[in-house]
Amino acid sequence: MSKFLAALLQMSVQNDVSVNLQTAEEMVRSAAEDHADIVVLPEMFCCLYTRKAFVANREPKGGRIYCALQRMARENHVYLIGGSMPEEEDGKIYNTCFIFDREGNQIGRHRKVHLFDINVKGGQYFKESDTFSPGDSYTVFNTEFGKMGVEICFDIRFQELARITAQAGARVIFFPAAFNMTTGPAHWEILFRARALDNQIFTCGCAPARDEAGPYVSYGNSIMVSPWGEVIGRLAEKTGMLLHEIDLDLVDSVREQIPVVGH
Amino acid sequence: MSKFLAALLQMSVQNDVSVNLQTAEEMVRSAAEDHADIVVLPEMFCCLYTRKAFVANREPKGGRIYCALQRMARENHVYLIGGSMPEEEDGKIYNTCFIFDREGNQIGRHRKVHLFDINVKGGQYFKESDTFSPGDSYTVFNTEFGKMGVEICFDIRFQELARITAQAGARVIFFPAAFNMTTGPAHWEILFRARALDNQIFTCGCAPARDEAGPYVSYGNSIMVSPWGEVIGRLAEKTGMLLHEIDLDLVDSVREQIPVVGH
Repeated sequence: MSKFLAALLQMSVQNDVSVNLQTAEEMVRSAAEDHADIVVLPEMFCCLYTRKAFVANREPKGGRIYCALQRMARENHVYLIGGSMPEEEDGKIYNTCFIFDREGNQIGRHRKVHLFDINVKGGQYFKESDTFSPGDSYTVFNTEFGKMGVEICFDIRFQELARITAQAGARVIFFPAAFNMTTGPAHWEILFRARALDNQIFTCGCAPARDEAGPYVSYGNSIMVSPWGEVIGRLAEKTGMLLHEIDLDLVDSVREQIPVVGH
Repeated sequence: MSKFLAALLQMSVQNDVSVNLQTAEEMVRSAAEDHADIVVLPEMFCCLYTRKAFVANREPKGGRIYCALQRMARENHVYLIGGSMPEEEDGKIYNTCFIFDREGNQIGRHRKVHLFDINVKGGQYFKESDTFSPGDSYTVFNTEFGKMGVEICFDIRFQELARITAQAGARVIFFPAAFNMTTGPAHWEILFRARALDNQIFTCGCAPARDEAGPYVSYGNSIMVSPWGEVIGRLAEKTGMLLHEIDLDLVDSVREQIPVVGH
């Protein structure tokens, strides 16, 4: 049980939640038909990446989006890392990833810890903290393949979170994410490679497909990186599925060869 | 005083300490003639990278190598980050970098904290801990341009050390280093870019020139990376000097645009 198939679904996200849920459902089914064990959706797979859309489409745990994800996992008998959604609780909104097992039971929840507030000269401006409250912990869940972790997008810039997640036993960290056309070309690959290499784990980033006409242009480029820091799979900007085997024995082998984690 | 010129001296290291000291002296003089403010020598600039050479050429602080470095700094009126040497103290040997100001006063000392013990299948084997004792702290020194840090080679694989050094105020970290032909192509660039990007600082790696006939083949590729994670200068494998301006205002500017360090 050291090998499994992971599928990153780089889907196109539209203005209409129903359309997005249907797209996700079709792609999850297709991944299951290809024998994927763990399926990952992108950050904010259910609505546009704007403050307005976050507020308009916020839902509590157990709402329509949550139940749709649960059903996709159960009906396709896959682990589902449900990208993220604007989750409402006690009047606050979080950027939240729910994680389900093959029977549709929730086995994890990650609320984005580091909110995306940037202001690049001549580039991207965004202030997520206007809308969201931050999560306050790392996230690890269990599978028959061992422990895995989840972070969301901007979380990747903070090395400590991946370190803690890996120290808690995660040998793969999945990142629903949506870098943009400023930070994507500059930092997407290097950050996934750095987190993988520093912790000698696999990292997987799943992004929405690029829509040049949308209000927030996603870089796409969903990616998988090995514990050696090598890119083992990568999409371009269009809709697609990155399906790749992950061999967890490589984690032990790399840690033996260069004893960083053991040090 | 936010700008200065840094010179990384990618020198060829031979079997004979006297030859190496002479090479270093000539290159430091040449850097000073080009108006370098801070001059960096490679890891083990004074002897071959073998256990035998480390033991044979070990010297205490104040010995021949130390005094030669001191004189180079003073005579050329430059800050000198003296690569590293096998330093003996109380019967122990350390992989040590001494740092001198423009008057030749020692203003810092870094003993390699993480010793280089690797065993890559079909690649590189080395066990530094057979010879050296590890250092036990980070290293920051002061200049008229602000605080700077030093680490040595394998230290770079441990994200915490750079984090602590940056939190202590270093806006540049210099790494005398000697990656090999296994780890160099795989990890050299990514590690310098990752430490720079994660801490929003400059990183500089200074390596010996490559000698295919030597007992340990250095990757070379001395490198400077900006706080944006961008390679701003890089040598190939041959002897040479990488002379480049470092503008410390870029540290503040990047930290303002993407508030990672402030978070």
